Amino acid sequence: MSTMKAIIKAAREPGFKMVEKPIPDDLLPHEVLIKIKATSICGTDVHIFDWDKWSQGRIKPPLTVGHEFCGEVVKLGDQVRSLQKGDIVSAETHIVCGRCEFCRQGQSHICADTKIIGVDTDGCFAEYAKMPAENLIVNNSGIDPKFLSIQEPFGNAVHTMLHFDIIGKTVAIVGCGPIGLMGVNIAKAVGSRKIIAIEINPYRLQLAQSLGAHVCINPLEEDVIARVMEETGGMGVDVVAEYSGNKHAIEAAFKYIKAGGKMSMLGIASDNIEVDLSNDIVFKGISIYGVIGRVMYQTWDQVAGLIESGKIDLEQLVTHVFSLSEFEDGIAVMKSGKSGKVVLIP
Amino acid sequence: MSTMKAIIKAAREPGFKMVEKPIPDDLLPHEVLIKIKATSICGTDVHIFDWDKWSQGRIKPPLTVGHEFCGEVVKLGDQVRSLQKGDIVSAETHIVCGRCEFCRQGQSHICADTKIIGVDTDGCFAEYAKMPAENLIVNNSGIDPKFLSIQEPFGNAVHTMLHFDIIGKTVAIVGCGPIGLMGVNIAKAVGSRKIIAIEINPYRLQLAQSLGAHVCINPLEEDVIARVMEETGGMGVDVVAEYSGNKHAIEAAFKYIKAGGKMSMLGIASDNIEVDLSNDIVFKGISIYGVIGRVMYQTWDQVAGLIESGKIDLEQLVTHVFSLSEFEDGIAVMKSGKSGKVVLIP
Amino acid sequence: MSTMKAIIKAAREPGFKMVEKPIPDDLLPHEVLIKIKATSICGTDVHIFDWDKWSQGRIKPPLTVGHEFCGEVVKLGDQVRSLQKGDIVSAETHIVCGRCEFCRQGQSHICADTKIIGVDTDGCFAEYAKMPAENLIVNNSGIDPKFLSIQEPFGNAVHTMLHFDIIGKTVAIVGCGPIGLMGVNIAKAVGSRKIIAIEINPYRLQLAQSLGAHVCINPLEEDVIARVMEETGGMGVDVVAEYSGNKHAIEAAFKYIKAGGKMSMLGIASDNIEVDLSNDIVFKGISIYGVIGRVMYQTWDQVAGLIESGKIDLEQLVTHVFSLSEFEDGIAVMKSGKSGKVVLIP
Amino acid sequence: MSTMKAIIKAAREPGFKMVEKPIPDDLLPHEVLIKIKATSICGTDVHIFDWDKWSQGRIKPPLTVGHEFCGEVVKLGDQVRSLQKGDIVSAETHIVCGRCEFCRQGQSHICADTKIIGVDTDGCFAEYAKMPAENLIVNNSGIDPKFLSIQEPFGNAVHTMLHFDIIGKTVAIVGCGPIGLMGVNIAKAVGSRKIIAIEINPYRLQLAQSLGAHVCINPLEEDVIARVMEETGGMGVDVVAEYSGNKHAIEAAFKYIKAGGKMSMLGIASDNIEVDLSNDIVFKGISIYGVIGRVMYQTWDQVAGLIESGKIDLEQLVTHVFSLSEFEDGIAVMKSGKSGKVVLIP
Repeated sequence: MSTMKAIIKAAREPGFKMVEKPIPDDLLPHEVLIKIKATSICGTDVHIFDWDKWSQGRIKPPLTVGHEFCGEVVKLGDQVRSLQKGDIVSAETHIVCGRCEFCRQGQSHICADTKIIGVDTDGCFAEYAKMPAENLIVNNSGIDPKFLSIQEPFGNAVHTMLHFDIIGKTVAIVGCGPIGLMGVNIAKAVGSRKIIAIEINPYRLQLAQSLGAHVCINPLEEDVIARVMEETGGMGVDVVAEYSGNKHAIEAAFKYIKAGGKMSMLGIASDNIEVDLSNDIVFKGISIYGVIGRVMYQTWDQVAGLIESGKIDLEQLVTHVFSLSEFEDGIAVMKSGKSGKVVLIP
Repeated sequence: MSTMKAIIKAAREPGFKMVEKPIPDDLLPHEVLIKIKATSICGTDVHIFDWDKWSQGRIKPPLTVGHEFCGEVVKLGDQVRSLQKGDIVSAETHIVCGRCEFCRQGQSHICADTKIIGVDTDGCFAEYAKMPAENLIVNNSGIDPKFLSIQEPFGNAVHTMLHFDIIGKTVAIVGCGPIGLMGVNIAKAVGSRKIIAIEINPYRLQLAQSLGAHVCINPLEEDVIARVMEETGGMGVDVVAEYSGNKHAIEAAFKYIKAGGKMSMLGIASDNIEVDLSNDIVFKGISIYGVIGRVMYQTWDQVAGLIESGKIDLEQLVTHVFSLSEFEDGIAVMKSGKSGKVVLIP
Repeated sequence: MSTMKAIIKAAREPGFKMVEKPIPDDLLPHEVLIKIKATSICGTDVHIFDWDKWSQGRIKPPLTVGHEFCGEVVKLGDQVRSLQKGDIVSAETHIVCGRCEFCRQGQSHICADTKIIGVDTDGCFAEYAKMPAENLIVNNSGIDPKFLSIQEPFGNAVHTMLHFDIIGKTVAIVGCGPIGLMGVNIAKAVGSRKIIAIEINPYRLQLAQSLGAHVCINPLEEDVIARVMEETGGMGVDVVAEYSGNKHAIEAAFKYIKAGGKMSMLGIASDNIEVDLSNDIVFKGISIYGVIGRVMYQTWDQVAGLIESGKIDLEQLVTHVFSLSEFEDGIAVMKSGKSGKVVLIP
Repeated sequence: MSTMKAIIKAAREPGFKMVEKPIPDDLLPHEVLIKIKATSICGTDVHIFDWDKWSQGRIKPPLTVGHEFCGEVVKLGDQVRSLQKGDIVSAETHIVCGRCEFCRQGQSHICADTKIIGVDTDGCFAEYAKMPAENLIVNNSGIDPKFLSIQEPFGNAVHTMLHFDIIGKTVAIVGCGPIGLMGVNIAKAVGSRKIIAIEINPYRLQLAQSLGAHVCINPLEEDVIARVMEETGGMGVDVVAEYSGNKHAIEAAFKYIKAGGKMSMLGIASDNIEVDLSNDIVFKGISIYGVIGRVMYQTWDQVAGLIESGKIDLEQLVTHVFSLSEFEDGIAVMKSGKSGKVVLIP
């Protein structure tokens, strides 16, 4: 029982390896050891797998990857008072400094001295993982671990969707990857008036519809701006939730957002965007919010509350489940674009 | 075609009379004539019927009563530009001055110079009614008029439920008359975590459950404070929505609201309430909001948005439909307590 | 007494003319006639004087120009109830439709069917002007009319400065034309921690300092980003108030705004701006608000409140006073850049 | 140098004693030792001195009293990274659990498991004190320590005054003890339109005027409700800041608050208050907020920002300075009511 299976980035090259390595039970006083019950694959994991430019600059192999999970607390560091053995937990993946101006004023999610689990420290694609107690959220143990494992990205979607008021409003979800799909479902769960999903991948657009989108637009097939204006009586949408990071999609959004509208931006753009500031921001009187991570830990409470409300279609959001050793199949299906969330079970 | 049936308060005594009176087609330039398609009964109508103390001080017979309705615009005053014949409309029932500090700063709902339709001016328990164009909301004509007729009180419920954030939160609905029942359903529609309905009338408590309450408490049968604390892990509820106006119910709510909690208060209390300010407001750091009417007209937009979202159980909220001439049956069922909204069809 | 002096755009060419024309006392029922006591020159007036491209597309001569003023009500239309003869008034210059979604939901400032006084209708560079009663604000008659005449642009500054919280915060004011200078003074009036003024015109930068700026930066003389970072301990500013419309100034502001910072944007840019969305909006978690006009009429109440607080340095904000007939001198001093607000007295 | 002078509650009886006791330099890893440079007297200290009923239930002698201070860090616990020797610091006096729902969601100020410095743990009426590093705020060392020592109660005043928007508003300050006086000065610093101070103690009412109150009302000499209504054109005040805890003063405030008004309540009432809920909360549409402590640590940043803005009249707020050994004189002047803040210098 002193070793475990783990998926690691072994070397500065594409790919992951499954290895047998020691269980990390050498806990610091504020850490706990967790037996992983389910872990889900993030786009970031795929970037690290592919060894893209960003990964080359950030990742220091060997590293156990993965950061989205649900597990059971099996051992406690000496100073841990907030958890007990047997607690079913997930983790906020930003390990923050706790001392800076941001951390001390309810803004830990923008702490400049943040380490990310599975990126800067060993992660959870493994049978066991150790984590700082402070980062752990105690879950409702009555919910299937495969659903609980996706709460971290679900938190990104919650942060994006609920920063501005979307109850009874028209909402455009730009980009329906797994997090955008969650955004669609959140808009449905809280009673948005009309949910417009915009996505070029037909599989995901279909899933968006199934998760609650009233209107599905494929920009490869029709004029997005014209269609959104038509669907909103020529007024544009009240709220844009931007998940795509696509320059053209974002620039279009500035055209079909209603005067006085609100835009939450989560997607990461590789190019600069160009904005007609006068006509599209100033004269329209719009508001924009940049979304990073999850508000610690208010967003997690919203996540738990929405899940417990029974209004989230978790069954549909998790489209694939593999065993941990099938991680390459999981990554392949992620890369195919024909998936929602993909879960691995150790 | 120059006369119509109308339900009026004919004299300073209990009861209403159905009479034949001229259609009010003598429009001022800013008024429109509406053919009423459905009208619903408010508790205020019952008070006027009963000729209670408040009515005796406020109502000047003869008066056509009623203020909740859906109808069709059939004639326009000379200066009306915002409406067309054939529009399906409902009315905000507060006719405000438009000139005071409140009206000019987005706070018309607290205008001190407000006239109320069916109380201070002739109302809509009739085949036709005239109304100021400004007060009319154009409805989605695809929705059944009997549902559209209840939007005004639904707006009270929306104003009460959505002033504070209830998405993913635990919410206590205190008092489940027709508006409290709408409150339960709104909390369900927007994804509240746990909805606790508190009501002494078993019929309405049952309806609350059917409309989405996760927990139903009858104060005649159990200790409300103890039960709410038990249902919330000893923490109390995040948000209280107060519809009862009952001194004891309100005083209890201050005990089971969570520290940092929020309380929206719509119910009208006949007695003063007594509050332990130090322990129940200051040390708990809570927020309280007094709810009057509907924010003009943001609340109406939320109402329309929620109805169009398809998340509101309108079929359950309207429990009875009568013809206009059966108004006494409608009032009787309202007074029995065994009803949600009661609609009359002219 | 049936004619008056007025400054008009007489023809489709540069320049204004002073003419003698009839007093506009042919009031519609909702209009009032105002004897102008003081009127101030806006940058828009200078554009119209110069007959720039925008003016050529918008202005239809002959037109009495000017929109900022203080005057006395001398005649009332038949339906005016909110004003009395002798009231000292100023005008909100956006004449809005009153019927659209925006007007009905507290967002008149973004009404799509807006006419602007002195641009689309005859203005106030005259001895008399008629205006809709609804647009008028009754002033405190104890204040000098030359100060009351600048409230409309002061409202732009108030809208810009107070949309986000600046009490005790570090604030960068980008662009210190007359409205930016007001912004500096508002930040001082409400207790901002450190006020950083950025402006290339030395006269105005000097005035900014005198009005309350703790730090004055001339981008022609030093590296703005480096200096702001130095002045904020390397953190950047909490709030940016953008008045310049200058592409480079705006792009720099995205670099020196603090993570979690807020940016209010009033300046009109003639070019598109380019933003590194990922690093400067998303990862920094910032908020942006486009400022158009004044919130009707909450901003006007803030304007009056700040002026009555005695905290605004009106004496310094109005740098020049001319008689109406000296309008060319007034425009010349505006164009020289060596002025704050320039007032004309009929 | 291993002992120090300290003011302690020595026994379960009225009075304090100055004693010589060991310097508490036995630091836990997260604690620091502070050389006290100035410390100010709180009403709570007076209660403990007097050995009132509350003190008898809470205080466990022997205890070094006092919690408001400014000092210099002279020794660091092993794990302290956020501070350095020589830092000039003050302390948030709520030592919170850091693990509960409130602490984890930006609401530490309502943590149920809070210990208060100088009440539950040894305090700062001494030459040295040890404190948890987390609770310390690094001050601007250029400011006089006697002013920095009053930041904790100033934070209560900031929390009370700035929860609701008071810029350009009419504000009533109910109760002008030292914290209410700070409230008056904050309202002045941020540009309130009209500041109305209400207080029965003539010395303090005079001080309120000097600190910025435009109107001073002594309820023993005139009808408060009538006077406030007169001063506000019959409308009532926009915002009430309640510092008195006096039943009659509070009940009056509900009468003179404007419709739509806001009330922040910090004062601790020994009696229940009675409210006409219908007329004074619901129909008026008002908002109420219970103020406890300081938001950790946003309020402290506002405090520092306001002090650095130079707008706070610190010289007037601190009315008396004694040496530590003269503590009985300090308490006597506090009890006389003829003081603002009273500072002791070790």
